Amino acid sequence: MNYMSEALKEAKKAYEIDEVPVGAVIIKDGKIIAKAHNLKEKKQLATAHAEILAIEKASKKMKNWRLEECELFVTLKPCKMCRQVIKEARIKHVYYGSEESIVNESTKENYTYIESGECSQILKDFFKKLREDKHN
Amino acid sequence: MNYMSEALKEAKKAYEIDEVPVGAVIIKDGKIIAKAHNLKEKKQLATAHAEILAIEKASKKMKNWRLEECELFVTLKPCKMCRQVIKEARIKHVYYGSEESIVNESTKENYTYIESGECSQILKDFFKKLREDKHN
Repeated sequence: MNYMSEALKEAKKAYEIDEVPVGAVIIKDGKIIAKAHNLKEKKQLATAHAEILAIEKASKKMKNWRLEECELFVTLKPCKMCRQVIKEARIKHVYYGSEESIVNESTKENYTYIESGECSQILKDFFKKLREDKHN
Repeated sequence: MNYMSEALKEAKKAYEIDEVPVGAVIIKDGKIIAKAHNLKEKKQLATAHAEILAIEKASKKMKNWRLEECELFVTLKPCKMCRQVIKEARIKHVYYGSEESIVNESTKENYTYIESGECSQILKDFFKKLREDKHN
């Protein structure tokens, strides 16, 4: 099966509803376990890129956030956000079908650190508990 | 209202169910419009970090993926993935309560470009159509 043409079918679905036409499929053991297309405008959700929606579907199907044995075919080279999600989901390999540059990578980050002992403490407590549980 | 302590309350909910304890709230016009805590293990979903779940809730509430007037309070400095999502959602400012380093930034990217005229063409067609629609 030509996985990229399956991804392209998904991209065409996005095209039909005036979404930026990007499609993705996820493969495990030679089978497609998830398909998705960009739905950012329809869902009004910044994360509704094809890759992320496909990863969500695949994780749901596998009941596992680790998609280590899975490969992603996507019609466009993933944006930075999707690349990070792909990493976090531990996708084994990504195949992409276009290198068009359509994304505005921009907007500086506005971050402020509010020093708070408690926010750090709860994390320390958690990992301490985790270590203790492992040793018992 | 102390928004960070509201975020911390969320982190405590995660703690109670053995999730890495991170909580987030999103503020608009001085009001909390979304709260969430990390649910990665419970949902078995790599994207179920507190920040992303809060952004999803806020977008749903606002019926808008652009959260330009919103601020995010989160108990831990966001990871790379969340920082990208925060950017894409156009969150105005992020306040974080801990700089603990808990994330394994790792795993190299395995990407392969499969040259495919069609995957590029559909994007070109889309943006061409978009420009034409604007001029008409």
